[in-house]
Amino acid sequence: MSDYTKNIEYPNFDFEVTHKDEKSGARVGRITTPHGVVETPNYIFCGTKASVKNLSPTQMKEAQTDIILANTYHLMIQPKAELVEKMGGLHKFMNWDKPMLTDSGGFQVFSMGHGTCADEIKGRNTSKSKESLLKITEEGAVFKSYHDGQKLMLNPEISMKLQRQLGADLIMQMDECTAYQVTRDYTAKSMEMSMRWGDRSLDAFDEMHDGSQGLYGIIQGGIYHDLRKTSAEYVADRPFFGTAVGGCLGGSDDEMYGILESIQHINHPDRPIHFLGIGRIKDVFESVKYGIDTFDCVMPTRIARHGMALMKGAPNERINLINSKFKDDPEPLDASMDISCSRDYSKAYIHHLFKAGEMLAYQIVSQHNVAVINQLMREVREAIKAGTLDELRKEWLVD
Amino acid sequence: MSDYTKNIEYPNFDFEVTHKDEKSGARVGRITTPHGVVETPNYIFCGTKASVKNLSPTQMKEAQTDIILANTYHLMIQPKAELVEKMGGLHKFMNWDKPMLTDSGGFQVFSMGHGTCADEIKGRNTSKSKESLLKITEEGAVFKSYHDGQKLMLNPEISMKLQRQLGADLIMQMDECTAYQVTRDYTAKSMEMSMRWGDRSLDAFDEMHDGSQGLYGIIQGGIYHDLRKTSAEYVADRPFFGTAVGGCLGGSDDEMYGILESIQHINHPDRPIHFLGIGRIKDVFESVKYGIDTFDCVMPTRIARHGMALMKGAPNERINLINSKFKDDPEPLDASMDISCSRDYSKAYIHHLFKAGEMLAYQIVSQHNVAVINQLMREVREAIKAGTLDELRKEWLVD
Repeated sequence: MSDYTKNIEYPNFDFEVTHKDEKSGARVGRITTPHGVVETPNYIFCGTKASVKNLSPTQMKEAQTDIILANTYHLMIQPKAELVEKMGGLHKFMNWDKPMLTDSGGFQVFSMGHGTCADEIKGRNTSKSKESLLKITEEGAVFKSYHDGQKLMLNPEISMKLQRQLGADLIMQMDECTAYQVTRDYTAKSMEMSMRWGDRSLDAFDEMHDGSQGLYGIIQGGIYHDLRKTSAEYVADRPFFGTAVGGCLGGSDDEMYGILESIQHINHPDRPIHFLGIGRIKDVFESVKYGIDTFDCVMPTRIARHGMALMKGAPNERINLINSKFKDDPEPLDASMDISCSRDYSKAYIHHLFKAGEMLAYQIVSQHNVAVINQLMREVREAIKAGTLDELRKEWLVD
Repeated sequence: MSDYTKNIEYPNFDFEVTHKDEKSGARVGRITTPHGVVETPNYIFCGTKASVKNLSPTQMKEAQTDIILANTYHLMIQPKAELVEKMGGLHKFMNWDKPMLTDSGGFQVFSMGHGTCADEIKGRNTSKSKESLLKITEEGAVFKSYHDGQKLMLNPEISMKLQRQLGADLIMQMDECTAYQVTRDYTAKSMEMSMRWGDRSLDAFDEMHDGSQGLYGIIQGGIYHDLRKTSAEYVADRPFFGTAVGGCLGGSDDEMYGILESIQHINHPDRPIHFLGIGRIKDVFESVKYGIDTFDCVMPTRIARHGMALMKGAPNERINLINSKFKDDPEPLDASMDISCSRDYSKAYIHHLFKAGEMLAYQIVSQHNVAVINQLMREVREAIKAGTLDELRKEWLVD
């Protein structure tokens, strides 16, 4: 494994585990970045095209958000990473001065450029897939821009350069994200290529490294525990700042958690572990037990646009505000929350906004959902410290 | 004229002219309502379906908004005025605790239910007009709901009841709003009916009057100065709290201002005068000279959704952020404004949001436009007091 000898240091970054609950396996920690500290476990909200949908940075902060991400794939297409760099980098461009992450761009290339996380990862792949992906070789991937049909290349060196131009604090190695339906043989070969792409990412990163970014390696290997273990050993061996778990995680929750379990004791103990594209409330409670420190998913803001408000203790974690039972419900989403969106509007009013096609509804429910997730993460951190994670789980989830 | 003998008092309301500029004819004043004071001249922002599009009440207040309106026509259809009443009235329903106005619902019935102000008033009527309007009689208007096709009636008594249920501070008599293409004869008969509907509105209002609302009479008469004068005499004679100028104002600015001039010295001097559905920056500068105290128009938030940001001194009062010249413009909309939307995002970023279809763009530019209009109105009030309205006009408008 260790034919890679280069060492990379991250002087402006730090990860510290401040508490470990031996009973549950969960841990509390803090990631330090040049744009501030992220207490973990935490949730990274998707600002795909340099905007968390319907929410301004001010509103994200009102909802007590610590960190957001943007997608390299979307930004390399529009407005292009060079432009973002010219405008002073993503933080300045978006007016977000707290920690930020970008992905490598690879995930969307391989899952065809629809920019969603869940379908591909969870095995709900469709035949439309890969229609914009033209070729994958050892060199990299060639694909068509969804914006103007232009042929584009993404490879480890290009991904590192693009992410450097964007300038997020936490960035990702280039990997191939394999789909559910591929064979074990394909998955194995792909995982091996992702390791080589990892080394190329490290080399390219090292050349541009100025201390402003921390690079994550990504564990691939699909649903095959032995492949996952090999990939995890690779990531732990290389001088990455953080560890990420990516790729297809199977068709069921059990399969997904089985994968986390298989790599739990291989992962580097002193590095933050990010779970790519996963983030139901249930996933948070389960995954922290396997040492996961950060999550990301479009779910909180996406379901908001479909009228779904996240709710502690509600069946399936949410209520559907478009349901006619809320037509004359005078109660707010959650009067106990210290934020206007959750406290100052009746469900009847929000129901009306959705029915009337008023986009203020998106704003109210998106901000509520972000605030709920941030409250969840604060409570999860406290519960890990207090050893009461199971009790907290019962408050949040009804099975 | 004065066969109407009933007197109506508005003990919780007041209008006071605090300054009159004899040179320009413009005045500064204050309308007192149960939900607070509105310094005039002022601008009433359209929250058609109980929401100012893309902006929360918090954001409206950040933009220093004093008063908003909602449309009775839209709300009687969805979610229905009874529901709003059951939820505690419009103020509570929308979470807006400052002054509010509703119209009678008539305007949209007669202009076919598209809910826009400018086309009909300014003579840009189309043949699609009236497709949902089934019948106008002395009794009232019968029309089809755009929501479910249901046949609905609107008349003075129903309008008063609906506006009472909605519970805005300032409400409007029921009138017929005539279109540009109708004959003088039709306009005259319609105006006379609007006067009879005014008396019926007053009677119905008086029966429900509990001191919480102030009723405006509406001057009709189309483009005919003699009809306008008769209508203005009627409104001044009756015990309305305020005066509104409605209906078709011709096909040119000169025709519109000619109408205002024709009625200027007939209007009751001690009542606030509202200009229905008119509100370009140019209109504000011209109309205040004829004693107009308040304006309303969907323009500020509507043009925002098309990428247009209002801008002091810009040609046609605005800039088009979708124009590619802003692609790499690092400057904010207006760094001198004390509000994040105008100060904290580059034009390049907002351009990107529009190009990427990110709805945060609507929010940023809508709030900016509202803030610009509110700044305009503050500056107009100061300029009237200082006798420098013409100088201020030159700063804002390039002809």
